[in-house]
Amino acid sequence: MGSAGFSVGKFHVEVASRGRECVSGTPECGNRLGSAGFGALCLELRGADPAWGPFAAHGRSRRQGSRFLWLLKILVIILVLGIVGFMFGSMFLQAVFSSPKPELPSPAPGVQKLKLLPEERLRNLFSYDGIWLFPKNQCKCEANKEQGGYNFQDAYGQSDLPAVKARRQAEFEHFQRREGLPRPLPLLVQPNLPFGYPVHGVEVMPLHTVPIPGLQFEGPDAPVYEVTLTASLGTLNTLADVPDSVVQGRGQKQLIISTSDRKLLKFILQHVTYTSTGYQHQKVDIVSLESRSSVAKFPVTIRHPVIPKLYDPGPERKLRNLVTIATKTFLRPHKLMIMLRSIREYYPDLTVIVADDSQKPLEIKDNHVEYYTMPFGKGWFAGRNLAISQVTTKYVLWVDDDFLFNEETKIEVLVDVLEKTELDVVGGSVLGNVFQFKLLLEQSENGACLHKRMGFFQPLDGFPSCVVTSGVVNFFLAHTERLQRVGFDPRLQRVAHSEFFIDGLGTLLVGSCPEVIIGHQSRSPVVDSELAALEKTYNTYRSNTLTRVQFKLALHYFKNHLQCAA
Amino acid sequence: MGSAGFSVGKFHVEVASRGRECVSGTPECGNRLGSAGFGALCLELRGADPAWGPFAAHGRSRRQGSRFLWLLKILVIILVLGIVGFMFGSMFLQAVFSSPKPELPSPAPGVQKLKLLPEERLRNLFSYDGIWLFPKNQCKCEANKEQGGYNFQDAYGQSDLPAVKARRQAEFEHFQRREGLPRPLPLLVQPNLPFGYPVHGVEVMPLHTVPIPGLQFEGPDAPVYEVTLTASLGTLNTLADVPDSVVQGRGQKQLIISTSDRKLLKFILQHVTYTSTGYQHQKVDIVSLESRSSVAKFPVTIRHPVIPKLYDPGPERKLRNLVTIATKTFLRPHKLMIMLRSIREYYPDLTVIVADDSQKPLEIKDNHVEYYTMPFGKGWFAGRNLAISQVTTKYVLWVDDDFLFNEETKIEVLVDVLEKTELDVVGGSVLGNVFQFKLLLEQSENGACLHKRMGFFQPLDGFPSCVVTSGVVNFFLAHTERLQRVGFDPRLQRVAHSEFFIDGLGTLLVGSCPEVIIGHQSRSPVVDSELAALEKTYNTYRSNTLTRVQFKLALHYFKNHLQCAA
Repeated sequence: MGSAGFSVGKFHVEVASRGRECVSGTPECGNRLGSAGFGALCLELRGADPAWGPFAAHGRSRRQGSRFLWLLKILVIILVLGIVGFMFGSMFLQAVFSSPKPELPSPAPGVQKLKLLPEERLRNLFSYDGIWLFPKNQCKCEANKEQGGYNFQDAYGQSDLPAVKARRQAEFEHFQRREGLPRPLPLLVQPNLPFGYPVHGVEVMPLHTVPIPGLQFEGPDAPVYEVTLTASLGTLNTLADVPDSVVQGRGQKQLIISTSDRKLLKFILQHVTYTSTGYQHQKVDIVSLESRSSVAKFPVTIRHPVIPKLYDPGPERKLRNLVTIATKTFLRPHKLMIMLRSIREYYPDLTVIVADDSQKPLEIKDNHVEYYTMPFGKGWFAGRNLAISQVTTKYVLWVDDDFLFNEETKIEVLVDVLEKTELDVVGGSVLGNVFQFKLLLEQSENGACLHKRMGFFQPLDGFPSCVVTSGVVNFFLAHTERLQRVGFDPRLQRVAHSEFFIDGLGTLLVGSCPEVIIGHQSRSPVVDSELAALEKTYNTYRSNTLTRVQFKLALHYFKNHLQCAA
Repeated sequence: MGSAGFSVGKFHVEVASRGRECVSGTPECGNRLGSAGFGALCLELRGADPAWGPFAAHGRSRRQGSRFLWLLKILVIILVLGIVGFMFGSMFLQAVFSSPKPELPSPAPGVQKLKLLPEERLRNLFSYDGIWLFPKNQCKCEANKEQGGYNFQDAYGQSDLPAVKARRQAEFEHFQRREGLPRPLPLLVQPNLPFGYPVHGVEVMPLHTVPIPGLQFEGPDAPVYEVTLTASLGTLNTLADVPDSVVQGRGQKQLIISTSDRKLLKFILQHVTYTSTGYQHQKVDIVSLESRSSVAKFPVTIRHPVIPKLYDPGPERKLRNLVTIATKTFLRPHKLMIMLRSIREYYPDLTVIVADDSQKPLEIKDNHVEYYTMPFGKGWFAGRNLAISQVTTKYVLWVDDDFLFNEETKIEVLVDVLEKTELDVVGGSVLGNVFQFKLLLEQSENGACLHKRMGFFQPLDGFPSCVVTSGVVNFFLAHTERLQRVGFDPRLQRVAHSEFFIDGLGTLLVGSCPEVIIGHQSRSPVVDSELAALEKTYNTYRSNTLTRVQFKLALHYFKNHLQCAA
């Protein structure tokens, strides 16, 4: 029987024309691992002897019988091996780099069903003080009138309501246009984009130019790379010194970069600039970055920085240069004078601003009192707004005309709190009454629902005895600039207090430090008849008549676009 | 000469022991394409006859001479073919799916060198009115005093300057802390992240909860998927009803999702929520999204929406319900009365607010005039601030006490402009004087450089005869709420005008419509001796003394943190 063989590494393949040996295996082949027959041909795999070199073809004199047929079958086997090897190689690598989204076989029946938590559970999870603070189209104020709950539109006569609603909606839309509301839907980014780019924080002043940081392209190799940037409220350029054949659209709204040189592309992208065109502010331009089918988008904010309004406390930081006291009086000169005298006991040189809409102007002999007269009965908040409009120091302390300064009325403590925190307003206590209240809004299309709760949100960082809340009593220190920004609405002529803090929502961060206390003058009737008459008139203005309450409810409905309060 | 052959498709390979034919080629092999010798073996490639089947091995009786040696060489050739096929297959596919960052051979010497445009070119590209509006650490005001250029710190005595600078820096840092400045560096995203997420526009009210839109994971298959979300100013949760084994950290700052079920992961991510904890506002929380080594970050803005302050124009939209006229007077009652009479000629029932810091209060018999007295000489901007603090209509028209209404003084035209655009203030013209000026800032660490240029930025959309600018003449209509927000700084007692528009930078969008004209009373001296004496005193207050100029320059340096003006 003729045979030939060859070794591959530690294995030896013996090829012989089929005969007895192939089928039954012979003792002489101690290191035979296995054999296979192909027609008249027998292929034996043996553990090669180390002395045989790899691929060593070794001839042993064999009978030269009909070798040709079985050697031909070797050709076929090895050719098949080669092709299989090629196909196996390509399949293996394809698996490793295959597309990322293979469809997983759907989970076995016992696996997690996709369902949401029941609404009851969500209400528990996301409520605060019993109010469900979670996005929804409608909101309701459950409380009834006894608990101080109001439906504001009830302040209008039914016949007037349709016209009022139409005017209210028109004014609200004008307000929204000017404030850039409602905000566009969030900008979503898709996975696996081959770009690097800035998602937040790129700001440019009107007509200014800024570099856009972080632009990168890490897509697959390609003969030519083409990356396109598109803006709408500004123009694009690059500081890279490259010919127009590489960068088209310099100074236009669309910049197209095309090059085969990846390093050049990287360099150009690193130096792209955005120029705001046209004087506009408080806008957001969405810039897109494209290459083939991949698109990324990012925001560029066009905004003019707010100019600071700083106050110089002077070399000695005298309290006089930091704080002005402001008050408003009406038909109670005696109370005002008692209060002014109590101020001078503790603060001899602080400026006091008095706004007075009484009938008869007063003569106040105090070099540090600024006295303003107003049309008679112009009103409580008009007078407050006038008083703070005249302040020229960093802080203003608000007091009512019937308070009484005492040794616990430490203005310096309140100054320290505002100097060291981000609060805009910090209240004290009037004989222990801090009148802290929280204001929480639920948004809805027909106007927000306002929830008022007594108490505070949390302690104030750095001042353990102070807290953060939404409103406080009428004894507070404030940043003058921030107080003037909110202002006391002169439309509120009579009884009003929390309305100021409602107007301040979104602008004022309010705190309260109960250990700073001011006194209150006694409420017993005055003996002097003239003053008693004045007080009587005062009380008629001071009472919360139904008409005045209706007016305030109507103001919340129209002015603040609120729906109800509870 | 013995030979064997086989066909592959249209090609036939004849293998024969080397002899004469292999080298010189014989005429009989008309379809021979080529041949190659390997030792004693000759390999001929012929154009196969269609009759031969592929891979057909066909035997022709050949001499059985020393075939073994050359057949062994066939093995080697075909084995090599098979291995080469395998390696070629793997290399080919590796190239197609190779890692994205193959290091391209550096470009041939002739290719684009990486360099930036020269600064001169950048100055041309990014200048406006000759001012280079491009980020830089320092800015300079070239102009000299004659051209109205000032270096504001020169307003302070050299000996005072160090202490002033220290106080100025301390107050500026307090201002920055409260405004969340300087803003953090832009948030950059890396390429090829396997996540989808919101890059812009996710907003939550303090203590409220919102769903986070657009969260996706599209990474490679894995036995178990683990995605981690981390916040710092709020807590995370998901509405998906899944056991804690799948979602850990509900209601905490870190939410960890781990599951082998890709669909479940998708469902959970689609319903992730963010809850703002602690009452704070105007903050940005950076939320991170991680899986293995991939990290994406996106901003969540914690902000309380500003409460609207709308004004009801009433059923008939009477001008009286839309506009209040405000003015300030000092020692010029005769001028004031002439102006008031001219108003009544055209607008009989509009409310006029007069702030007066003269010595002697006036008696004005007009039911629609509100008259306020101030401490003597309190000042120009204090009076303006007082007047606008009393306005209860949507718009306020500012006029000086020596203007003269005429038939071209069409307030309705100015109202129409503010109703239909986003302007906050729109000026008219005083006898043709529009006094339009542009204000442009260059930021720098020591304070911005302020550039003032006469003229305007661009036409006003929708009103071709109107333009957008930064400042106008003292005859303008404004949104009351926005004017009160900026206010007239009562520290500016005497000559002041553009200071108001500088304070308004970043808050006011200002326009000008020259076709709305108001007259100006004659400047000739008054005949009446008493009034003449008053005017004389008035002029002493009205003049721009050096001290007053120094005071204003110092105010720009400290209050507005400006460095210089040009």
